[in-house]
Amino acid sequence: MKYIFGIDIGGTNIKIGLFDDKGILLEKYSIKTNKLDEGAYILSEIASFCLKLLDKKSINKEDVKGFGFGVPGPVSDHVVIQAPNLGWKNLELAKEFAELIGFDSIVELANDATIAALGEYKEMGLKENIVFITLGTGVGGGIVIDSKAVEGSHGAGGEIGHIKVEFNHPEPCTCGLYGCLETVASIRGINKITEDLIDSGKYKTSLDKAHLNPKIIFDAAKNEDSLALETLNKVSDYLGRACASIAVTVDPSVFIIGGGISNTGELLLNAIEKAYHKYSHYGTINTKFRLAKLGNDAGMYGSAELVRGIE
Amino acid sequence: MKYIFGIDIGGTNIKIGLFDDKGILLEKYSIKTNKLDEGAYILSEIASFCLKLLDKKSINKEDVKGFGFGVPGPVSDHVVIQAPNLGWKNLELAKEFAELIGFDSIVELANDATIAALGEYKEMGLKENIVFITLGTGVGGGIVIDSKAVEGSHGAGGEIGHIKVEFNHPEPCTCGLYGCLETVASIRGINKITEDLIDSGKYKTSLDKAHLNPKIIFDAAKNEDSLALETLNKVSDYLGRACASIAVTVDPSVFIIGGGISNTGELLLNAIEKAYHKYSHYGTINTKFRLAKLGNDAGMYGSAELVRGIE
Repeated sequence: MKYIFGIDIGGTNIKIGLFDDKGILLEKYSIKTNKLDEGAYILSEIASFCLKLLDKKSINKEDVKGFGFGVPGPVSDHVVIQAPNLGWKNLELAKEFAELIGFDSIVELANDATIAALGEYKEMGLKENIVFITLGTGVGGGIVIDSKAVEGSHGAGGEIGHIKVEFNHPEPCTCGLYGCLETVASIRGINKITEDLIDSGKYKTSLDKAHLNPKIIFDAAKNEDSLALETLNKVSDYLGRACASIAVTVDPSVFIIGGGISNTGELLLNAIEKAYHKYSHYGTINTKFRLAKLGNDAGMYGSAELVRGIE
Repeated sequence: MKYIFGIDIGGTNIKIGLFDDKGILLEKYSIKTNKLDEGAYILSEIASFCLKLLDKKSINKEDVKGFGFGVPGPVSDHVVIQAPNLGWKNLELAKEFAELIGFDSIVELANDATIAALGEYKEMGLKENIVFITLGTGVGGGIVIDSKAVEGSHGAGGEIGHIKVEFNHPEPCTCGLYGCLETVASIRGINKITEDLIDSGKYKTSLDKAHLNPKIIFDAAKNEDSLALETLNKVSDYLGRACASIAVTVDPSVFIIGGGISNTGELLLNAIEKAYHKYSHYGTINTKFRLAKLGNDAGMYGSAELVRGIE
């Protein structure tokens, strides 16, 4: 049996999973993300953790197939182009980690939303193309075509938070442009839509501008709060627009909705699917929608898959 | 040496190219598309033409690697889902053609825009991902990732004429929905934008509503006709929006602009690129734009590539 490390580097914690070569999680660990000196110690701390673990478990280095990494930023050709949450820029992760670990091994990496997509893809036992959408602080995505994640020529494959869903939207996106999906379907976007609806004075509501987050808002929607339902409507409508445009580009078999906001569950999933039917080309009308299953572990699983896919 | 047939089935003519196994075109032919009885004779006429040609050129059947087809409609799993211009619906092309040709051979097929994309990809000697956009009666597209065309789960991969570029557009698209790229960047769309500008009475122009087509309009733009320049602006702006949304989905290295309207040349290409920079996410800002090279032969080349790619 060979072993694979699946490592998901987040801004707060680093999840490290030890997998077998069938992709089964054997054990999982978490270490703090050391952001000192622009993340200069992150890779050596991971390498040292993994080496100690191999030692402790008496695993031979020859039995390690490789290390898969998920990072919070675009990746191209084994280089992290930018990961502002860690302080990294143009980091040759694969090369540097290979030197740190000190023995011959595969090192693969991809964007965190992309590895989450791969993780969900494997968990669901899918064979067809998927698009994974993660709704949280930002809106990200990962695309799997022919069992492979689409990295893109500039590491921006699946950056679907920046698909245009509006052309007269007044709020700028974190990217500096206007009308991106992220401006209306992220935590900030959902809060803003709700605040504007409260300000409009048109709806009776139990919601209070001083205490808003998507969980509170969509819980209110579940209790049929008319303003919260209107927020749900608007957010889903924008997601339906984006999915319709994605569908006529890569034509996935399934859209998988993940990220913290997806904990809203069926209420959100059904609303997105309904909106999608309004905007979808007839050729892609049968595309399915599913909720993600792996939650916060998806990235760890997907990182391991990056390595597992290599012969 | 092995031989490959690259066959591009259009609504008026069928182009048949005889290629070697390096993808070099040896000879090309054209036969009329027989649309009688819902296209019932098309495949047998192609098979009979190819068999006669093999006979005439004394090529052994064992030396034929295969037949690649481009068809004007969505394709999924070797079946033509629909090709309204030919009268076909759910046609098992690969299976039927294999029976007609009567000897063991590869039979592959794809949508016409997709094979044009593959053809241009090969002609330009590219290794990276591309998106090909064809501007003509309709707006179509083909996406090549890792040297393979993206067919999609419902044969709708690259159907980018139906990406949303507007959410308040009054004209319905041929698909029945609103705001699709095809409603504003096809021949009909470009004419309509120009007619509306003429009706607005705001521009001095040499153009006449009774004699409009994209060639006339963009020739006027080259002569600095202010109304024609405004049409160019608007059409390019919509194309820039669509390309920006495509870029954050599959992140190609190059957009290739083809189809009859692309004969406008650099004027159009530069206008699209300029508009793209307005809407593009910073991560995809360096994506290149090129004009297609193969013109009407792209499909024939791409059909041969479908077969050539198979080991």
